[in-house]
Amino acid sequence: MTDSRFFKKFGPFTLAQICNQTKIQIPENADPSTEFDNVCFLDEATSKDISSYHHTKYLSSLQKTKAGICFITPDALKYVPSNTIALVTKNPYRCFGIVATMFYPPTSAADSISPLASIHPSANIGNNCTIHPFAVIEENTVIGDNSIIGPHVVIKAGTILGQKCIIESHVVISHALIGDLVYMKPGARIGQPGFGFHMDVLGHFNIPQLGRVIIGNDVQIGSNTTIDRGSLTDTKIGNGVRIDNLVQIAHNVEVGDNSVLVAQAGIAGSTKLGRFVIVAGQVGISGHLTVGDGVKIAAQSGIMRDVEKGEIIAGSPAIPVRDWHKQTIALQRLIKGK
Amino acid sequence: MTDSRFFKKFGPFTLAQICNQTKIQIPENADPSTEFDNVCFLDEATSKDISSYHHTKYLSSLQKTKAGICFITPDALKYVPSNTIALVTKNPYRCFGIVATMFYPPTSAADSISPLASIHPSANIGNNCTIHPFAVIEENTVIGDNSIIGPHVVIKAGTILGQKCIIESHVVISHALIGDLVYMKPGARIGQPGFGFHMDVLGHFNIPQLGRVIIGNDVQIGSNTTIDRGSLTDTKIGNGVRIDNLVQIAHNVEVGDNSVLVAQAGIAGSTKLGRFVIVAGQVGISGHLTVGDGVKIAAQSGIMRDVEKGEIIAGSPAIPVRDWHKQTIALQRLIKGK
Amino acid sequence: MTDSRFFKKFGPFTLAQICNQTKIQIPENADPSTEFDNVCFLDEATSKDISSYHHTKYLSSLQKTKAGICFITPDALKYVPSNTIALVTKNPYRCFGIVATMFYPPTSAADSISPLASIHPSANIGNNCTIHPFAVIEENTVIGDNSIIGPHVVIKAGTILGQKCIIESHVVISHALIGDLVYMKPGARIGQPGFGFHMDVLGHFNIPQLGRVIIGNDVQIGSNTTIDRGSLTDTKIGNGVRIDNLVQIAHNVEVGDNSVLVAQAGIAGSTKLGRFVIVAGQVGISGHLTVGDGVKIAAQSGIMRDVEKGEIIAGSPAIPVRDWHKQTIALQRLIKGK
Repeated sequence: MTDSRFFKKFGPFTLAQICNQTKIQIPENADPSTEFDNVCFLDEATSKDISSYHHTKYLSSLQKTKAGICFITPDALKYVPSNTIALVTKNPYRCFGIVATMFYPPTSAADSISPLASIHPSANIGNNCTIHPFAVIEENTVIGDNSIIGPHVVIKAGTILGQKCIIESHVVISHALIGDLVYMKPGARIGQPGFGFHMDVLGHFNIPQLGRVIIGNDVQIGSNTTIDRGSLTDTKIGNGVRIDNLVQIAHNVEVGDNSVLVAQAGIAGSTKLGRFVIVAGQVGISGHLTVGDGVKIAAQSGIMRDVEKGEIIAGSPAIPVRDWHKQTIALQRLIKGK
Repeated sequence: MTDSRFFKKFGPFTLAQICNQTKIQIPENADPSTEFDNVCFLDEATSKDISSYHHTKYLSSLQKTKAGICFITPDALKYVPSNTIALVTKNPYRCFGIVATMFYPPTSAADSISPLASIHPSANIGNNCTIHPFAVIEENTVIGDNSIIGPHVVIKAGTILGQKCIIESHVVISHALIGDLVYMKPGARIGQPGFGFHMDVLGHFNIPQLGRVIIGNDVQIGSNTTIDRGSLTDTKIGNGVRIDNLVQIAHNVEVGDNSVLVAQAGIAGSTKLGRFVIVAGQVGISGHLTVGDGVKIAAQSGIMRDVEKGEIIAGSPAIPVRDWHKQTIALQRLIKGK
Repeated sequence: MTDSRFFKKFGPFTLAQICNQTKIQIPENADPSTEFDNVCFLDEATSKDISSYHHTKYLSSLQKTKAGICFITPDALKYVPSNTIALVTKNPYRCFGIVATMFYPPTSAADSISPLASIHPSANIGNNCTIHPFAVIEENTVIGDNSIIGPHVVIKAGTILGQKCIIESHVVISHALIGDLVYMKPGARIGQPGFGFHMDVLGHFNIPQLGRVIIGNDVQIGSNTTIDRGSLTDTKIGNGVRIDNLVQIAHNVEVGDNSVLVAQAGIAGSTKLGRFVIVAGQVGISGHLTVGDGVKIAAQSGIMRDVEKGEIIAGSPAIPVRDWHKQTIALQRLIKGK
């Protein structure tokens, strides 16, 4: 049950509306006008709720569910209780997401600029933007239409932000050009100078960090994640990229379209990731490397070499995941043999 | 020596008062009315100071100490210099903490609400709260009696905070129900949406994150730590939990009472930790796992399976700590043999 | 090409000026009065640009460069194209940094105190300081001359900050004495209480954290990095230390002069690092250890023992780097043999 203190619910929606939005045919024996009230986890769902089965851990929940509707893959259809309408799809969780978004659409901007924000007269604020108290928007910035700027956000001089962006509390952005539909969670830090200095026997000499951060459209950036600006070239985050909390992205890194970086991963300077790369939690990738399209890197791996397109790797230093499993087994034998 | 610029000291306290608070009998030859001025590390203590011996690394410091009082376990009594009053206890550091708290009680709230804070008229602020400049307290929130809200803190709409909480600077809390005596250090992020999206060939589809964060009583949360709200169910932090800095807690995670999570640990989505679990620094725990009561996980371990009650594990992937030690030795042999 | 929206460029500078600043002799056949406009990466440089060759990854870029000047080590001189003036030095990147700083000197403070900042009357603000909107500067603080305090920075009571410091947005500093020329990136947290409590069967007892953070001169601290204050003694960061983003430094840690801590490293309580120690990314160091001068620790290593001066170590638990390489090879053999 969603808590009405925090979430405003829309609906109800009919089976017909739900099937229309998810592009699934209405099952033959079901009444298209039946109304549903909410989305819910399998365990807690009632006959007015819509649920989905998308992880084998929850098979017993599926078998006991009282949900009115359940999105399901063809192979699991046989486990759906008879009182539940099964809507069969290859992607139950995508369908669930579509319906959840019908009931709980994302917050949209209202034309509301707090008098407690500090906005430079030269800032170009788009139409219908929301700007919360104590935001600081410096000179020569651009905020696209329908964007939301949270409390205490700092948009430093010259930054350009696209349309329909949501920038949550305490985010700081500088030296950056940012696309549309970008969502940043609280405390993300974008565009500060990278860890750039020359070390020799005379000590450390700071190298001015003269690049930018370029972020595409439909990007999400997690809480307290840090993305440094380039040193001479730019740090680039492609379209559709998803970055979790507490991730570190160093100067000049490039992350290709639709790649995913899970919490606490770290990418060292000048490394380039391809498209649809998946970097699991706490992975570390050394600097000046190239990681090909579609590479998958298991949690806590350490990457010290270039990685070919499509490789699946694990371990520190990382090796092909099959070898890593063999290694784990070999190590077990090693200690049992003694 | 504590620095009076930062710490206001109470006292002096007599040996009788100290023994009374720590429930230790006054030693026979000691004068109960002797006054003591401060707590201090063994090395720097004078005859007016109170110290404790609680780590074998500091045995030589104990032997040379000039402290007036030293809390000590029975087995180490023989090392206490003759001019130091030994107060014998099973838990020297707890006793030290009790006395340190007599001299330096925690900051308590004063009835003081900064005119520079932005507080929605519908917010329900308890009695005797302190609210610092530039705090933002949104609509329909509840702040319990005697709580302190630091500068730039954001309490988002609907959040409920208990009594005697201390929320330090720049913390953001949303979608959360929080108990009494909760202490959050600067920059903690509580209640933002988790890393929830469906990935398929069509790209990423954002799943609305419709749960909450439920936090018990007497919980401490470290600086820049991130705790995402649940996706459909709630993220739950039990009573007495201690969380260090830069920890990541993903959506739907549950942490049982009195568990301890050390710095930079990360817990992936929907994993459940029992009571009195100890998760050392930089540990990663995969999603959808169950970790039993009293489990201890060594630093940098990677947990990829359920863990039974009471297990002590280490390594990545984690194995019983004894096997991990054997493995370390076996690996050393392996390289020496070649 | 640097983006003029974000960077104000000085210059042009003549070859004579450049050689003078970098202490390199003007090449015989070059005209000392030739003017140069900017610094640039080898690939994009024109005849008016100054570049450097400092990483073997960029040899092909060097061979094709059109740069007017390139700083270079003697051994690589032969690869410099004939139209490029080669300025030979042992430290090309230091020279590049010197010249880049001529074109792009660091931001300096202007005498400008925002009326939107909250500054306690007892705060002692030096000459020619810049204080941004919504900064909070509490009682009995000292801000040295020519320092910059960013938006939403909180300087808690009693803190002393030296001259020419730059404290970026959202930094929080408490219980700290800080030297000159210190640069903190957005969201750094300095001086909060450490993770200090006593655990026993009665639960957790909080130990008051009564120490400070002492930071030397010319220190840099990364975004969202956390440095806890000491428990009874102090946490100490020496002169010239460089700390990257998302680093955790626990109570009572000491970091010697000129040491370098890369992103997401974590140092547990009371550990002491010597001078010129290099701690790579995601390294974890246990508590109560001593790490000698000049030690180098590879990324993701786990340190569980004292480390002698000059050791180079890798792995978790860390071993000498040569042994670690042997171990990696031995593990590969192990899985191939089966």
